[in-house]
Amino acid sequence: MLPGIGVFGTGDIVRALVPFLRAKGFRVEAVWGRTLEAAENVATELNIPFHTNKVDDVLLRKDVDLVFIICQPDLHAQIAVKALGIGKHVLCDRPAGLCQLEVLKMVHAAQYYPSLISVISHGLRFLPAFVHMKRQIEAGYVGVVNVCDVRVHCGSMIGNQFDWMCSHLMGGGILTMVGSHIIDIVSFVTGQRANRVHGMMRTFTKSTEKINGIRWIDSDDFCSFQMILDGGSCVTATLNSHMAGGFTQEVVVCGSRGRLVVRGANLYGQNHTAEKEEQLHEGPDDVAHLTNKNNSARINSLLPQPYLQGLFRLVGALKEAFATGDGEHGWLKEPVSSAATFEDGQYVQAVIDAIKLSSASRQWEQVTVASDENELNPLMTRLNLPNINMSSLDALSQAPTNRPPPQRKVTSTESHLPWSFATKH
Amino acid sequence: MLPGIGVFGTGDIVRALVPFLRAKGFRVEAVWGRTLEAAENVATELNIPFHTNKVDDVLLRKDVDLVFIICQPDLHAQIAVKALGIGKHVLCDRPAGLCQLEVLKMVHAAQYYPSLISVISHGLRFLPAFVHMKRQIEAGYVGVVNVCDVRVHCGSMIGNQFDWMCSHLMGGGILTMVGSHIIDIVSFVTGQRANRVHGMMRTFTKSTEKINGIRWIDSDDFCSFQMILDGGSCVTATLNSHMAGGFTQEVVVCGSRGRLVVRGANLYGQNHTAEKEEQLHEGPDDVAHLTNKNNSARINSLLPQPYLQGLFRLVGALKEAFATGDGEHGWLKEPVSSAATFEDGQYVQAVIDAIKLSSASRQWEQVTVASDENELNPLMTRLNLPNINMSSLDALSQAPTNRPPPQRKVTSTESHLPWSFATKH
Repeated sequence: MLPGIGVFGTGDIVRALVPFLRAKGFRVEAVWGRTLEAAENVATELNIPFHTNKVDDVLLRKDVDLVFIICQPDLHAQIAVKALGIGKHVLCDRPAGLCQLEVLKMVHAAQYYPSLISVISHGLRFLPAFVHMKRQIEAGYVGVVNVCDVRVHCGSMIGNQFDWMCSHLMGGGILTMVGSHIIDIVSFVTGQRANRVHGMMRTFTKSTEKINGIRWIDSDDFCSFQMILDGGSCVTATLNSHMAGGFTQEVVVCGSRGRLVVRGANLYGQNHTAEKEEQLHEGPDDVAHLTNKNNSARINSLLPQPYLQGLFRLVGALKEAFATGDGEHGWLKEPVSSAATFEDGQYVQAVIDAIKLSSASRQWEQVTVASDENELNPLMTRLNLPNINMSSLDALSQAPTNRPPPQRKVTSTESHLPWSFATKH
Repeated sequence: MLPGIGVFGTGDIVRALVPFLRAKGFRVEAVWGRTLEAAENVATELNIPFHTNKVDDVLLRKDVDLVFIICQPDLHAQIAVKALGIGKHVLCDRPAGLCQLEVLKMVHAAQYYPSLISVISHGLRFLPAFVHMKRQIEAGYVGVVNVCDVRVHCGSMIGNQFDWMCSHLMGGGILTMVGSHIIDIVSFVTGQRANRVHGMMRTFTKSTEKINGIRWIDSDDFCSFQMILDGGSCVTATLNSHMAGGFTQEVVVCGSRGRLVVRGANLYGQNHTAEKEEQLHEGPDDVAHLTNKNNSARINSLLPQPYLQGLFRLVGALKEAFATGDGEHGWLKEPVSSAATFEDGQYVQAVIDAIKLSSASRQWEQVTVASDENELNPLMTRLNLPNINMSSLDALSQAPTNRPPPQRKVTSTESHLPWSFATKH
């Protein structure tokens, strides 16, 4: 049976997602909002039976077995760690957290409960164009990967009022919102991870007609970053939210024998010896009708079509994992085996942290993926984040060690091959 | 009367340019090649009356008044300085020289003979799309310029045999060949110059089927660079010659009010409040028929359509300058007033030098435009160039101070407003 779902968040993406979850057969049991009013509005609009502004009220519900954390990034880690501790499956929106320390706590929680699903919403991994791109690269279409060249152009991500998207301390900005997906997908298709990064971030639009009071926008609206991958490939990415009127994304992978390009949701390729570029995959347009037309402009910049399509396909994979799973053991690993784990989320966060550092230090920075929280002390000092979230998180993170894991039966294969460790580590 | 032309160089661009020069009414009197055989071949093919492999034999000819220096970059400075000393007008291909020291010597020579034309072949300045882009930026279409985002994709620039394009010490590589144009055009349209730069250069293709002997390719085939302009704008540029099968170039300028984009030779724009992008200028296709179809592949990567169109328009402007000029004083300034001067070439070279340094030092580097050769000593040490060219150049550069400037009558306005000083300095 499909698990009941609790949703954290009240944004436009929730409004697009809930109808899709239902179409897939999921029951949406509860919604959490930062304010009771926001929660009530969404519950009424989407006909969700329960709403609250208290995290525990959703997590402790017996009819909720899977939580979707789609709220502001500074709350992701707290909710995810607590949810796993209570024995709920978790899908967490990107970026996983505010900094690597937060995500590391999530990783530890996921490792402690390997029988629970814990994935990051990097839906591009499920977009057929990128699935095919990865296969073609593995099959040698481009030869040795030399260059990845990524360009994302979109309109402003800032809404009509001041919210977390305006604040880099709360996880807003084009690097965390879009860059996180790019960092993940480059690593996914090439099978390589970044060793060193360089970044240039800027906030050009510090106020708008609607946001011009005491609080200013300080999240990045432009970011250019470069990565040297562990296989020697060079990556350069330009994320530009000053291109009103549309979203365009191009991911180019060039190698010794040819190149592959994903434009939007389509895949193209050309061998060095070929005369012309060939279309290798035509992207689907099968979810466009599910998005509410009224929200399309904001959704287009916060979660453009290829990302939304990917997210929906990830949800489809989740459904398969539960629907085809043995009734007793809950779910099967295979359908979601290519999803981004919390470890993948930690890697992405480590790269984001290093790009932010580089933009401030004006130097290349090493990407350090830590396995112990103490390793991150020097990095945290340099990142200069406020320690409010850290202390509240520290209290939360004690939970797993203070009590036994939730009483769930685990199959023998699962216990030997916990799903969270299934990807390269 | 139009001046007779001496051409230095025997490459494919010469084969495309000479017929065009004749179509404009110029007489091509002499051609120089690195070997007598190469010179003879071109002379025969293009029906040029005189050929030689001795620089002086072209420069000292009485029927040659204007020289086109379109040979390997390590020879540009020597020939340009000598040509001006003998009293010839000069059009020099990009990059102006191998390093800023070389170009500074060219600048000094040009300053010493202000009545002579001395321009760099940055033809994009004459491409209507960029002319209109500059005008629109000046008219406030984009508001304050925040971001310039440039992407150039092309096929390999390496030919069938080892030549200067394979060697970074001889001026080869995508940064000098394409990046020089980009650095110049960004400065031209925005009216801003780079203060600091960051670069990442790579040579992924070190050998080919034809070039796999003792000598290896060490010129860059991939370059990503970033610039902070003196007005605070950020520039990011990706130059990628691993995209076989075509040339695409996009120059995006985003500002506080809107954006402008030149794609190929077309100009598009969108105001932030507008629904859709509008086409502001449709590029010409009026020179395609002049390029020899047999050479088109190589020319396409060495000098793609927009650059070729721009170069031809620059030649058209030169014709106008001479044709409409007072017969006694030779030429009029106005038609070529927007061309890139040797000072502009020095700025471009200073940026190229800084990008090369940055790629090696992995740090941001200051752009230093020197007015005295001694200022460049620390830079030259860091650039680590062989001093063979320097010593031969030192000998050459003495020429201007040893003898009086050539006997040419100079109009009073010219002497007060020497053309070489006409741009910002």
